[in-house]
Amino acid sequence: MLTYPLEQAGGMPLYEYLYDCIRRDILSGRLRAGEKLPSKRGLAAHLGISTITVEGAYGQLMAEGYCQSAPRRGFFVSAVQNPGIEKAQLLPEAKEEIQKVKPEWLADFATNSISPELFPFATWTRLLRRVVAEDAESLLVRSPGFGVLPLRQAIAEHLRSFRGLSVSAEQIVIGAGTEYLYNLLVQFLGRDKRFCVENPGYERVRKIYDACGADFVLADMDAQGVRLEELERLQAQILHISPSHHFPTGIIMPVSRRYELLGWAAARPERYIIEDDYDSEFRLTGRPIPTVMGIDVSDRVIYMNTFSKSLTPTIRISYMVLPEEIVKPFKEKLGFYSCTVSNFEQYTLAKFISEGYFEKHINRMRAYYRRKREHLLSLLKSSPAAGKMKVIEHGSGLHFLLRFDPSIPDDVLQKKFMAEKIYMKPLVDYYEGAPLHCRHTFILNYSGVCDEKLEEAVASISRVLMH
Amino acid sequence: MLTYPLEQAGGMPLYEYLYDCIRRDILSGRLRAGEKLPSKRGLAAHLGISTITVEGAYGQLMAEGYCQSAPRRGFFVSAVQNPGIEKAQLLPEAKEEIQKVKPEWLADFATNSISPELFPFATWTRLLRRVVAEDAESLLVRSPGFGVLPLRQAIAEHLRSFRGLSVSAEQIVIGAGTEYLYNLLVQFLGRDKRFCVENPGYERVRKIYDACGADFVLADMDAQGVRLEELERLQAQILHISPSHHFPTGIIMPVSRRYELLGWAAARPERYIIEDDYDSEFRLTGRPIPTVMGIDVSDRVIYMNTFSKSLTPTIRISYMVLPEEIVKPFKEKLGFYSCTVSNFEQYTLAKFISEGYFEKHINRMRAYYRRKREHLLSLLKSSPAAGKMKVIEHGSGLHFLLRFDPSIPDDVLQKKFMAEKIYMKPLVDYYEGAPLHCRHTFILNYSGVCDEKLEEAVASISRVLMH
Repeated sequence: MLTYPLEQAGGMPLYEYLYDCIRRDILSGRLRAGEKLPSKRGLAAHLGISTITVEGAYGQLMAEGYCQSAPRRGFFVSAVQNPGIEKAQLLPEAKEEIQKVKPEWLADFATNSISPELFPFATWTRLLRRVVAEDAESLLVRSPGFGVLPLRQAIAEHLRSFRGLSVSAEQIVIGAGTEYLYNLLVQFLGRDKRFCVENPGYERVRKIYDACGADFVLADMDAQGVRLEELERLQAQILHISPSHHFPTGIIMPVSRRYELLGWAAARPERYIIEDDYDSEFRLTGRPIPTVMGIDVSDRVIYMNTFSKSLTPTIRISYMVLPEEIVKPFKEKLGFYSCTVSNFEQYTLAKFISEGYFEKHINRMRAYYRRKREHLLSLLKSSPAAGKMKVIEHGSGLHFLLRFDPSIPDDVLQKKFMAEKIYMKPLVDYYEGAPLHCRHTFILNYSGVCDEKLEEAVASISRVLMH
Repeated sequence: MLTYPLEQAGGMPLYEYLYDCIRRDILSGRLRAGEKLPSKRGLAAHLGISTITVEGAYGQLMAEGYCQSAPRRGFFVSAVQNPGIEKAQLLPEAKEEIQKVKPEWLADFATNSISPELFPFATWTRLLRRVVAEDAESLLVRSPGFGVLPLRQAIAEHLRSFRGLSVSAEQIVIGAGTEYLYNLLVQFLGRDKRFCVENPGYERVRKIYDACGADFVLADMDAQGVRLEELERLQAQILHISPSHHFPTGIIMPVSRRYELLGWAAARPERYIIEDDYDSEFRLTGRPIPTVMGIDVSDRVIYMNTFSKSLTPTIRISYMVLPEEIVKPFKEKLGFYSCTVSNFEQYTLAKFISEGYFEKHINRMRAYYRRKREHLLSLLKSSPAAGKMKVIEHGSGLHFLLRFDPSIPDDVLQKKFMAEKIYMKPLVDYYEGAPLHCRHTFILNYSGVCDEKLEEAVASISRVLMH
């Protein structure tokens, strides 16, 4: 029969010690699944302890699933797989995550990132200190669900000055990333609505609609953006577009198509356009592109923007502007949610915008990216492989396309670039069923590539194309 | 015919100026719906400008819906309701929001808040500055979806030391508030699952499950918490509980009930328990209550906690601990989501915890709340109305219950308190179909009430009860 050195229980209650001993034997396999445990009385007598103690131990073993009782037959060891005595240690995946060394690309044209020297750390931390010094109390008062008013007012003012958008602070909803705001929109508009996203486009947007349980479809585009007939054919109800600068094609939707889409939206009460204006600050040549919301008179456009591109993706602040007429229903339906952005960062950003730092920062960034872009374009133009590639760009945003001589399949080409430590993604990766004419086209997200590396990067691209 | 002072166009393109003039006349009502506009040629001749200019103006007016063309008949003013020339101004609601003066309660026992002097502003901003100084680059590197590793490691270590929970950093998911994490859980576990929440409980939790489109039910409780038979009867699959300190009843779920619920969960592969441990740090008397996750050997418990109570609700950082076996599937299904918490605050909090400030802060808070609680309890005990009320509390958390002499209906009593500038909510407010025995019981969230006000507040409560 089971025998344990009960004198070693120390200060532990006896039943707990006994429980622990038996548990260990089950986990180690000394007691096997299906094995019958001694009767309570039998074990109590054997160990010279009370039945109640054994009962306590068995009870806990049962409750935790280490054994089962069969009426009138006794207690039997359950099939318990060692439930991770090593739990406390890092799982292999976490280890991987720590050890995962970022591949040392010469130039990573696939990842969006900004250089640390661009972020206005000094200003940001100074403003935060001021926020704390001037109004610590406000920092601890729960933010309205839509965000704190000073930030919403600052954004409204910013939109008025820089996007020609005349909206009130009341229409603005602050959230921790556009991904979160899409979630809210699905909850507000309804999962039964048919959401429509651009094809090609960010896979992430599709994944979000999918994860939210929304009914969503993909609309093909022509050179002007999403086609009206597609919307009709797909019976779309909510259209998600990025008209200022489509990713990845770079298309800027012409005004005519915008009006067509507005007409489509106005035709039925349940139709809305979600306008994702994610990198409109980086119109690098020509005049800024007006927003679709700005020319909408039917309250059909929900405008979205983020500080991910203009500040950093690692401060999670995005916002949307609701059409006036849905402000109230939105508040009624989802106003119970707490705002997902910290007060500290909401108030700091409010100051950052309203005191003019944001404008200065954007101007500095724009100049920086324009220089980088021009440098890269001129390097491509003067490269020995210039005849084997074509730049496709519309003067906007932080990426453009490069079409290559079509003799090599995209995946082979991508691998050849990788061997040269150039990371680029082909356009077809962003398509669901990519059309033939999109092949051999790669996306150049140049914002995160060091100036000093550009020349070498273009030389490497040339080398691949010339061999 | 329409006449406008074209010389006032200034630098504006003429067509745009003309468009603007006509648009204003339509909005102001000078041009009425249905009215025919002059022909393009006619107006051009009249104003001495080119037909192309008028065409441009009419085109834009049409596109924006201010007029329509009828084939061969000309252009007609549309029925346009003034689409908010005043848009730029604050909507009435926003004005309200600004003007809304917080009622001046003598004591607000209904709202969770903390006193500004409790938040460690100096330490927090100092750590943030250090984070910026020491590793600015990391601040701009996109956080893994689950959160940055140093924070997850700090939380794992904290859970090990203070909650006896042995989990790996890999199991921890950081999010901007538990509300957001519930959203993720619904997306992961599936809207088709039947979620079950405690009745009574936070209305917000119900609203979230509802907004997420989850199928959810309410389970009645007995003195130990949710009843097993309820779960079976309701065919629940995911059980959401707060066993350490239930809100609003204050019940601490005994171990026996915990084992029962674990047994229930282990019986079917789709069953999970969401353990909301929201104010476990504020066990003010006796030993800490162990977690349900800590005694679970079947990987059936998802543990949740937040820094809302222990730090401030206005820094939006919460986390959940996934059972080991769902870490991978969770990552596969929802790993595409960006983490919703800013890197700045993630790294600052990581330092705050790992360098021992969090522990000190919690101890200080606990001592502060214990003093406040004891003070309030002794005031209630020695009040002239002591015989007309009964304190119901279990030595835990930042609230307790007060049951009053049952001669007055709850809403009347609440109004009487309000007249004395005491804000309290009755327990029945947290019930869906409250049982009779819950009447005349009010919740005292004492964390946000000033020490100096306690005496006066209790005197006011007495006054209401004695009259």
